[in-house]
Amino acid sequence: MGLLDGISHLTDLRALTPDQLDELAAELRDLIVSTVSRTGGHLAPNLGVVELTLALHYVFRAPDDRIVWDVGHQCYVHKILTGRKSQFHTLRQFEGLSGFPNRNESEYDCFGTGHSSTSISAALGMALARDLSGEDRNVVAVIGDGALSGGMAFEALNQAGHLGCRLIVVLNDNEMSIARNVGAMARYLSRLRTDPMYSRSKDEVESLLRRIPAIGPRVLGWIERIKDSLKYLVVAGMLFEELGFTYLGPIDGHNIPAMLNVFRQAQAVEGPVLVHVLTKKGKGYAPAEKNPDKFHGVGPFDPATGNTPTDARVSFTEVFGRTLVQLAEADSRILAITAAMTSGTGLGPFSRRFPQRFFDVGIAEQHAVTLAAGLAVEGYRPVVAIYSTFLQRAYDQVLHDVCLQKLPVVFALDRGGIVGEDGVTHQGVFDFSFLRPVPNLVMMAPKDENEFQHMLKTAVEHEGPIAVRYPRGTGTGCALDQDLVALPIGRAEVLREGDDITLIAIGNMVPTAVKAAEILAERGIEASVVNARFVKPLDEKCICHYARRTGRLITLEENVIAGGFGSAVQELLVAKGLTDVRVQLIGLPDVFIEHGAPHLLRAKYGLTVDRVVRTAESEKRKRARLKLAPRLLR
Amino acid sequence: MGLLDGISHLTDLRALTPDQLDELAAELRDLIVSTVSRTGGHLAPNLGVVELTLALHYVFRAPDDRIVWDVGHQCYVHKILTGRKSQFHTLRQFEGLSGFPNRNESEYDCFGTGHSSTSISAALGMALARDLSGEDRNVVAVIGDGALSGGMAFEALNQAGHLGCRLIVVLNDNEMSIARNVGAMARYLSRLRTDPMYSRSKDEVESLLRRIPAIGPRVLGWIERIKDSLKYLVVAGMLFEELGFTYLGPIDGHNIPAMLNVFRQAQAVEGPVLVHVLTKKGKGYAPAEKNPDKFHGVGPFDPATGNTPTDARVSFTEVFGRTLVQLAEADSRILAITAAMTSGTGLGPFSRRFPQRFFDVGIAEQHAVTLAAGLAVEGYRPVVAIYSTFLQRAYDQVLHDVCLQKLPVVFALDRGGIVGEDGVTHQGVFDFSFLRPVPNLVMMAPKDENEFQHMLKTAVEHEGPIAVRYPRGTGTGCALDQDLVALPIGRAEVLREGDDITLIAIGNMVPTAVKAAEILAERGIEASVVNARFVKPLDEKCICHYARRTGRLITLEENVIAGGFGSAVQELLVAKGLTDVRVQLIGLPDVFIEHGAPHLLRAKYGLTVDRVVRTAESEKRKRARLKLAPRLLR
Repeated sequence: MGLLDGISHLTDLRALTPDQLDELAAELRDLIVSTVSRTGGHLAPNLGVVELTLALHYVFRAPDDRIVWDVGHQCYVHKILTGRKSQFHTLRQFEGLSGFPNRNESEYDCFGTGHSSTSISAALGMALARDLSGEDRNVVAVIGDGALSGGMAFEALNQAGHLGCRLIVVLNDNEMSIARNVGAMARYLSRLRTDPMYSRSKDEVESLLRRIPAIGPRVLGWIERIKDSLKYLVVAGMLFEELGFTYLGPIDGHNIPAMLNVFRQAQAVEGPVLVHVLTKKGKGYAPAEKNPDKFHGVGPFDPATGNTPTDARVSFTEVFGRTLVQLAEADSRILAITAAMTSGTGLGPFSRRFPQRFFDVGIAEQHAVTLAAGLAVEGYRPVVAIYSTFLQRAYDQVLHDVCLQKLPVVFALDRGGIVGEDGVTHQGVFDFSFLRPVPNLVMMAPKDENEFQHMLKTAVEHEGPIAVRYPRGTGTGCALDQDLVALPIGRAEVLREGDDITLIAIGNMVPTAVKAAEILAERGIEASVVNARFVKPLDEKCICHYARRTGRLITLEENVIAGGFGSAVQELLVAKGLTDVRVQLIGLPDVFIEHGAPHLLRAKYGLTVDRVVRTAESEKRKRARLKLAPRLLR
Repeated sequence: MGLLDGISHLTDLRALTPDQLDELAAELRDLIVSTVSRTGGHLAPNLGVVELTLALHYVFRAPDDRIVWDVGHQCYVHKILTGRKSQFHTLRQFEGLSGFPNRNESEYDCFGTGHSSTSISAALGMALARDLSGEDRNVVAVIGDGALSGGMAFEALNQAGHLGCRLIVVLNDNEMSIARNVGAMARYLSRLRTDPMYSRSKDEVESLLRRIPAIGPRVLGWIERIKDSLKYLVVAGMLFEELGFTYLGPIDGHNIPAMLNVFRQAQAVEGPVLVHVLTKKGKGYAPAEKNPDKFHGVGPFDPATGNTPTDARVSFTEVFGRTLVQLAEADSRILAITAAMTSGTGLGPFSRRFPQRFFDVGIAEQHAVTLAAGLAVEGYRPVVAIYSTFLQRAYDQVLHDVCLQKLPVVFALDRGGIVGEDGVTHQGVFDFSFLRPVPNLVMMAPKDENEFQHMLKTAVEHEGPIAVRYPRGTGTGCALDQDLVALPIGRAEVLREGDDITLIAIGNMVPTAVKAAEILAERGIEASVVNARFVKPLDEKCICHYARRTGRLITLEENVIAGGFGSAVQELLVAKGLTDVRVQLIGLPDVFIEHGAPHLLRAKYGLTVDRVVRTAESEKRKRARLKLAPRLLR
């Protein structure tokens, strides 16, 4: 019977004495490790912020005080403490608790997050609203050192510092990420942590200068003159002070009394304040402390050992990493760029094999894309590996810097389609729609991991911008060809011939179409199956041929229907005057897709073999009734 | 007969002696003023960089040395000096010189720009490519103080400073923008300009400290200890030094010898260097010096007086500004946000009437949108006024921060559709396509300035995210209602009834549809005309009714066809099983649209009354041949 049993809400937390909080922290860690070992989740980030979260909720009065969690994958302790302990076992499960803050879930989740570097902007909005309304609450943004490399965070700091608005930014600086984090800002933070001069307060320095024994009047005058400047000079966190923030820190993020103290100080500061807190990712769970990268986001594991079950099948991410090394061995123009996702995108092997040709730009998707444009101008073939959902952050750079100039940049879009447990903020289901209107861009999606290899070869050889979008997780387990062959741009692949109906599928919906066609054949409906391969340009000749031949098309995609692949096929038919062909679009509806196991989400939203079979059967019945009409219309 | 007559290329420039450059600068200013007075263009920014451009091209050896112009509207002198003087009179004209750097135009335009804050990323890419290739050229990014507020610029500085790559960033700091520029960074730059302590070199300060007469060994030891830190301390440009850049400046950007000197110094620096240059927008042309805002981008004017011809018709931008003030008088929840475009978006009157409710965030579209999300969370109704093309920079924020959370943020998208002379980087022709897939968003476009007023009323009253997209320039000159009425969401307006064909138009294509219908009526074709008003949600009932009634639809939009409004209408017909209706989509093709007068571009790309009439006539003829078919298909 521990302290945690008695905590169902923040009032229970605040009834504890400060010296009970360390005990509570240990119990929270146990609950998190045991739960995440079953559900999977962002283990290491949450273990790192146990004390920080306790201290925040002990000092600040949520929900009236606002706490915005940047990225939000570190919100588990927050969820447990704000009335969701009893549901915590449903974390990341279909219809269970989200792994990220979600306004629909709790009034304590005052702002939903998932993507990086948004918290200071949102919190500044809340703080300005407070001032406009004449209210008095505290507004706190909790942001990691990685997220601070996103330009949007700088934009928000820049305005907050300028306005002098009362706002608390807690910089959660993971000690473990020193080696990994990149950028001048990260190096600066590391100096703050390690250089005692940086930690000296301005008062200390001023008094030291004044104590210089035989100081002459000239020097004293000089000291007076630089007094204001001094404020910005021998002061820790100068960079933040220059931007108009009061800097407090660095503070040990596992020392609860120190944090209670600094948060109370921060409340009293009139303008914007940055509290620099040092935490350790994975804290308190040995396997995660040892390997915070692996335990950043993890599937189910054995809590005793930290071992994760192995999957014999290779993932698309692995195929990407391996193939890119293979291609780069043969072509020295090939470079790889990631926005702080070296291991997530499978670029670990490339980064070790070609350290000079590998660039991790930090969480900075916009810069990543335009950096690639600059490299392409000079004759290189940069491959920007990025999750589909995060490419949304660099849309203008794709359009304006790369495609407008027809530069040969390769976009390797991992996690396209339904991603599963990470949920609504991470589903990669918009990319076909937002990339399709972009002129000059070629866009592919492979039916399996073998075709994916060939598409990568196609991409690096193409003389213009090109994207390949592939799903999260493992492929079909098909054999992988040894020799890579570039595919002809804009050419589809016909997988099956049939006269009754055509299934045109793209990406991971191709196997679904093939299975559906097999079932349909058993039921006497002969379907042609076309693997489109290219969302753009479409294989116009092939699609029009099968449209004419069968008079009925069903398009299949794991993307929203609005503006997606099927929409492109429709536009083609109109442009070619084939408006008498009946088309059915199978894809995702016009809603945000929640979290849950991918197979459950696909079942809910109808991306299944069964749905395709039923749709084809129903089309066949309709067609039977109208059988003469298509001839007339030609 | 001046110096400029003898300059047709950079070699001629470099043949001059440095003391001839001032004279050349004066001649360049005359050429720019006289040309832009006829063509329109970005006058003030170009007048501000005459000496800067001369000095850059005198010291650096383009095209082998790379010069990237951020935003690029300040490239006129560069164009004149790099072989384009004889075409300069065609500036911004259809088929003439672009007003921005363009790789298709000249090898001296090594990177195309138009949108802000991209130059450091692109230049860093070029610099890394140089190092990979073992070459030795200089790479220079020229960026304004405004563009430096864009987070992407920070992302690039952060990586460049970290890598220590040899790169020259010229910060073109317009003295004139002190009052206007916002953000803590701008305030910091202004301190650099005005505070002599900030300009003191670290050597000076060190030697000053050492000269303190009776300095004890303890203090001397202390000085030794902080020597490294000192490097970062009493040094001008500390913030940049903290980020790993060598800071040189500030330098008078109209003093050519000083700039020649500092650029030569910059070449010798091993790592990244930031040269802080102070210029005056509009320099040398009194009307522009007095009113740099008006002359930032300007239409044709009288060069003697600076007067611009007045247009009696009101622009959409003015209607926006005026209506928003009217609405805000009645509803204190309404706030306005701009990303450094107060006057461009028509928010001047609002900013003066409601200074507390107005936020200029700098060139920071991402932050602008998420700031709005934070304000909306607290019950306010923020209106984010932004050009369509620049919303591309905040796509993820619209999707992830606003629409996912169904927050009532209003997006006022000015410059939707063809913008004309600014050209390819500024056309607002993708917004229907990239916003349509976003769940929860309502999207409108008005047929004229009167309907626009009502749409703004509709927007601020809607309980969720909503966008209104309107064109550049003046409207139809229609009467403006005094009383504003919220329109029913998702309801179209029927403007004409006819049985032969339906024209469904959105936004500024509605008047085109009406005129076409009048001509068609004279020719015996009766068209129904539907003003769709909403791109999303569509008025399903109305559209399906007219689709059934006439069996033929033509959609009209000033947006790319791919994924646009017409594509949405098609998806609707499929979803409702109305696949027997013939549809034609009129909109822009899958290419980037160049610069030129809007009427010329509309003629080239077929957004004209004549094209609509021809399309309808040809559909009618086809229909005549198939007249029974649609009945059969029902």
